[in-house]
Amino acid sequence: MYKETSIKDVKITGGLLHEKRMLAAGKTIPYIKKALNDEIEGIEPSGAFENFRIAAGESDREFYGLVSQDSDVYKWMEAAALALQYENQETLAAFDEAADLLKRAQQKNGYLNTYYIIHGLKDKWHYLKESCQLYCAGHLIEAAVSAHQVLGRTDLLEIAEAYADYIDHCFGPEAGKIRGYDGHAEIEPALYRLYEDTGIDRYKRLADFFVEERGRKPYFFSEEPRNTNVGNNLVYELDESDYRHSQSHLPIREQNEAVGHAVKAMYFYTAAADKARLDHDMDLFQHVKKLWRNVTEEKMYLTGAIGSSAYGESFTYPYDLPSDLMYGETCASIGLFLLSYHLLLIENDSQYGDIMEKTLYNGILAGISESGTEFFYTNALEIDPERCEKRQDYSHLKYERQPWFDCPCCPPNIARLLMGLNKYIYTGDEHNFNIHLFINSEADMNGWTVTQDTVYPRAGEIRIRVRKADSTPGVLRIRVPSWCGKIRIKKNRQEIHPVINRGYAEIEQECWMEETEIQVDMEMLPRKVYASLQVHSLIGKAAVMRGPVVYCAEEADNGDLSGLFFKRKGNLSGDVDLIYAEGYRCTKKETGLYGCEPPQFEDNAICLVPYYHWGNRGKGGMCVFMKER
Amino acid sequence: MYKETSIKDVKITGGLLHEKRMLAAGKTIPYIKKALNDEIEGIEPSGAFENFRIAAGESDREFYGLVSQDSDVYKWMEAAALALQYENQETLAAFDEAADLLKRAQQKNGYLNTYYIIHGLKDKWHYLKESCQLYCAGHLIEAAVSAHQVLGRTDLLEIAEAYADYIDHCFGPEAGKIRGYDGHAEIEPALYRLYEDTGIDRYKRLADFFVEERGRKPYFFSEEPRNTNVGNNLVYELDESDYRHSQSHLPIREQNEAVGHAVKAMYFYTAAADKARLDHDMDLFQHVKKLWRNVTEEKMYLTGAIGSSAYGESFTYPYDLPSDLMYGETCASIGLFLLSYHLLLIENDSQYGDIMEKTLYNGILAGISESGTEFFYTNALEIDPERCEKRQDYSHLKYERQPWFDCPCCPPNIARLLMGLNKYIYTGDEHNFNIHLFINSEADMNGWTVTQDTVYPRAGEIRIRVRKADSTPGVLRIRVPSWCGKIRIKKNRQEIHPVINRGYAEIEQECWMEETEIQVDMEMLPRKVYASLQVHSLIGKAAVMRGPVVYCAEEADNGDLSGLFFKRKGNLSGDVDLIYAEGYRCTKKETGLYGCEPPQFEDNAICLVPYYHWGNRGKGGMCVFMKER
Ligand SMILES: [Zn+2]
Ligand SMILES: [Zn+2]
Repeated sequence: MYKETSIKDVKITGGLLHEKRMLAAGKTIPYIKKALNDEIEGIEPSGAFENFRIAAGESDREFYGLVSQDSDVYKWMEAAALALQYENQETLAAFDEAADLLKRAQQKNGYLNTYYIIHGLKDKWHYLKESCQLYCAGHLIEAAVSAHQVLGRTDLLEIAEAYADYIDHCFGPEAGKIRGYDGHAEIEPALYRLYEDTGIDRYKRLADFFVEERGRKPYFFSEEPRNTNVGNNLVYELDESDYRHSQSHLPIREQNEAVGHAVKAMYFYTAAADKARLDHDMDLFQHVKKLWRNVTEEKMYLTGAIGSSAYGESFTYPYDLPSDLMYGETCASIGLFLLSYHLLLIENDSQYGDIMEKTLYNGILAGISESGTEFFYTNALEIDPERCEKRQDYSHLKYERQPWFDCPCCPPNIARLLMGLNKYIYTGDEHNFNIHLFINSEADMNGWTVTQDTVYPRAGEIRIRVRKADSTPGVLRIRVPSWCGKIRIKKNRQEIHPVINRGYAEIEQECWMEETEIQVDMEMLPRKVYASLQVHSLIGKAAVMRGPVVYCAEEADNGDLSGLFFKRKGNLSGDVDLIYAEGYRCTKKETGLYGCEPPQFEDNAICLVPYYHWGNRGKGGMCVFMKER
Repeated sequence: MYKETSIKDVKITGGLLHEKRMLAAGKTIPYIKKALNDEIEGIEPSGAFENFRIAAGESDREFYGLVSQDSDVYKWMEAAALALQYENQETLAAFDEAADLLKRAQQKNGYLNTYYIIHGLKDKWHYLKESCQLYCAGHLIEAAVSAHQVLGRTDLLEIAEAYADYIDHCFGPEAGKIRGYDGHAEIEPALYRLYEDTGIDRYKRLADFFVEERGRKPYFFSEEPRNTNVGNNLVYELDESDYRHSQSHLPIREQNEAVGHAVKAMYFYTAAADKARLDHDMDLFQHVKKLWRNVTEEKMYLTGAIGSSAYGESFTYPYDLPSDLMYGETCASIGLFLLSYHLLLIENDSQYGDIMEKTLYNGILAGISESGTEFFYTNALEIDPERCEKRQDYSHLKYERQPWFDCPCCPPNIARLLMGLNKYIYTGDEHNFNIHLFINSEADMNGWTVTQDTVYPRAGEIRIRVRKADSTPGVLRIRVPSWCGKIRIKKNRQEIHPVINRGYAEIEQECWMEETEIQVDMEMLPRKVYASLQVHSLIGKAAVMRGPVVYCAEEADNGDLSGLFFKRKGNLSGDVDLIYAEGYRCTKKETGLYGCEPPQFEDNAICLVPYYHWGNRGKGGMCVFMKER
């Protein structure tokens, strides 16, 4: 078991993700600030910053937007704080301004939610099932902890702690307190972060209460008072009795299947993993792991997207993974990334890192445009633009990234994930140093100094240099990805054959004081991937991957995609940006809508690009899994 | 151009459809009566008959059900009247009772709609877009005309005429009248039938007004007063500005594409065809034909199902014909059958008869169970039971016929179509006798006496005996179905080679006074059918047909269907009830959710049954188009 890695201990120095981070810091974060401040013409007004000004008594406008809106400001603040690991005067000034505004909007007792402040605090803590108050508070806390860790500043932390204290005053198992929880988990993992950052026990106790209370009977959501105002600003409206949607149908320790809203599920399971880790509660860990396995073995797309249904943005049933009529919210993949990391802190097993890189290079990276200012909310594996435009049941799917959303949860979430990537690359302590992700970076933690040089995932070679400050023995562990069939490892230019333990190549040395050079060379050829036959919609289809990167065919390169087939046992050539697959195009003498004329198949190479790259060339279709014959 | 064939002129004497008619007369019609009268336990109460009793002042309950509910009583009455071509005391008594009840419920001025009578006639004629008043009136009129034609009784006709007169008093182009129309077409074709039955011109003038007024600007539906009560009983709730949904976006003569609610469209186009026929208006005919072609060449399933989307129960865009996520309401196929017949009255071309038999033997017959008391509302070409049960976006699709529906439009509609089938088999006048459908039957019309002996569609042999009362020359026309590749015709046992004109084998004789025997022998082998490549969802797939009958694979015969493939150029054997297709089953060494292990294909015969037969053996999947390799 490890503590979360400190973001300050790792520097990212180059490569694909570094480029994306620079884009996020330079373009995305300023853009989101403007969007939340209603400064961008032609997009849905947000009202998010204005709501804080109204709450502070500095504007006489009316609350605007969804009840969850405050969270977007907080997520942007967390992204901005993380981005300030690189100097940026504009972002710093915007962050300062926002922190000051929050201070002015906060109530004397610590309460801070613009919707309820603006509405005279009427019905506050009512209808927690849908009001997102604790969800918003959670994101405030996360922003504050990140600002504290990266910038050392305590102003936001004071605001967050005051609010957390007030929540602690209102919620809990004690008589007179509300035995409730939020319809959207988030306060739970946030309170664990606050506890680990401040060391204050009561935050952990409160988080523990929220984690264990959810799903107990009588159901809180069936008993709690209903808020009469909040109705018009709801995010979801679902069957009242659908407790599964918010994972509140059963206590966490009785849940065996991932159900309901995919983002809510990931955040809640992450908190449960934190509790397991902090309490050394292996029983709870096994439960969370079971839920994670249910997701990754039965309910996850090849790209790490999760959530097969737009209805409730939710999981459906095992192996129901249609490529087209799906959801795959960017935030849900981010949630799966976070959950995997929090499990990895407990158990050093490569399956978690495999899922982290799968979501990162596919479902998450696809969420942001190459300009940094457009976003996917849903991430389907197959898009037919006409269908998205003309069928109501596909209307949640888009063929181009959007400049903004009514519910803009995803854009600041990608930004904060990218800017916070530092902490997910390595874990360890003074005895062990574990390398999970292959990213050009320098780490200086627990006495270890490690650098990685690589252009991964563009190629599979990684040069690692390791030193350790003291002369004690230590183990360096390098994740061997599950996609990798052939790996060669050299230590100081001599090939070695280290033990592979739970998916990690383990290199032990009595002393690491002198710099040791490790070279890893993973064969990274394009390969065909097939789904389990349990995934009915994918029978007879194949996809192409290279390393952790999923590829797709775009109409921009191939023309109409509907008639393309991969050639069974066909050759795959090319790499990195472009792969060519041998294939066929279906042709047919047209004899009306239906006829006896059979189709013919002509040789036709299929051009494939990384999935994360798709949709940057205007309107057009896209397809990951294609028919094979 | 022909008049509608009189139902009294034709007797159906045997065969598949005769069996279905006997089932409808003996089981379905009594069952529906009971359902509408709330006498069947365990199903949704209907309230339909009770509403009439309340309206007549004989019950003090409250209106129950949808605003369109009266129409179900009327459609049942039409089915019952048509069924009374066969003696049945129970049905006769029920019909009498219903006719009496209607008389007592009708207002002095002729108005008759239980929803508005019960609500004190408040806001009557408001919100015609959704209130279904004229739609219900149309079904009353059709029931009355059928009762008049089959039974010679005028009691229902008097009620219908009184109501039609009152509608004529309220609606029309004249000052002081409402220049409006109903959101769901039906009054229009009904008024043409009433005109043809009674010869009263004002019914035609009123129908003409409704046909031509729809879609004129300013839009009636944007100007009409809104009914405040009707809201809770609406059938549809869609975007206010969606005039396409009710085909009221443009005048009929400017419409070039079939859009909106599929049933509404079929009924409206049918009325327009009637107007074209009665006015000899070839310009209007060409327009309606264009719409019909748009449906049958771009928007129709192989089974004759129409309506690709549950949203609005409507057409989508050309070639958008997904087999699974579709609608295909039984009533819409019935509407397409009716429209085709009304066009056929204008133009004797086999394409209309082809569509009539396609819808009849597939989309329509599938709508009713072999017990006669369960029904499909939607008719998909591919059903995965788990998906229907567990995905909200598939929840309108069922794997078993249902005993009843909130909106029970389909059950009485199938019943009335089956019982009225007599009139769709033949058309003609004293010079011509046209055979469109191949059904064991005897016709005695316009001096012609014709009998058909056949087990069609079980086999392709038809024995026709023809006489004509007078010695004038005449042409016998026999439709040559488009599915038929080889046909042999014998006259009095001598093979002949008649001219094929617009899809009909034309047999001319100077005199038909002596009985002439015509034998038709159509080769009816199972065959593979492929869709146009424009139908993207069907590329790489094939279906099997035999004659006009579409076949499907059921889980009951084949086990899990998802891994089955037809063998390209594979043999098809068997006939009628069971066809075997050479095929494969996909197998795979399972290596988790995704892996590099390619699938294998083992020989596996696929068992196929008629589509109309499916779903009578408990829970299980079904598939019409299957992958081929
Ligand atoms: Zn999101
Ligand atoms: Zn219907």
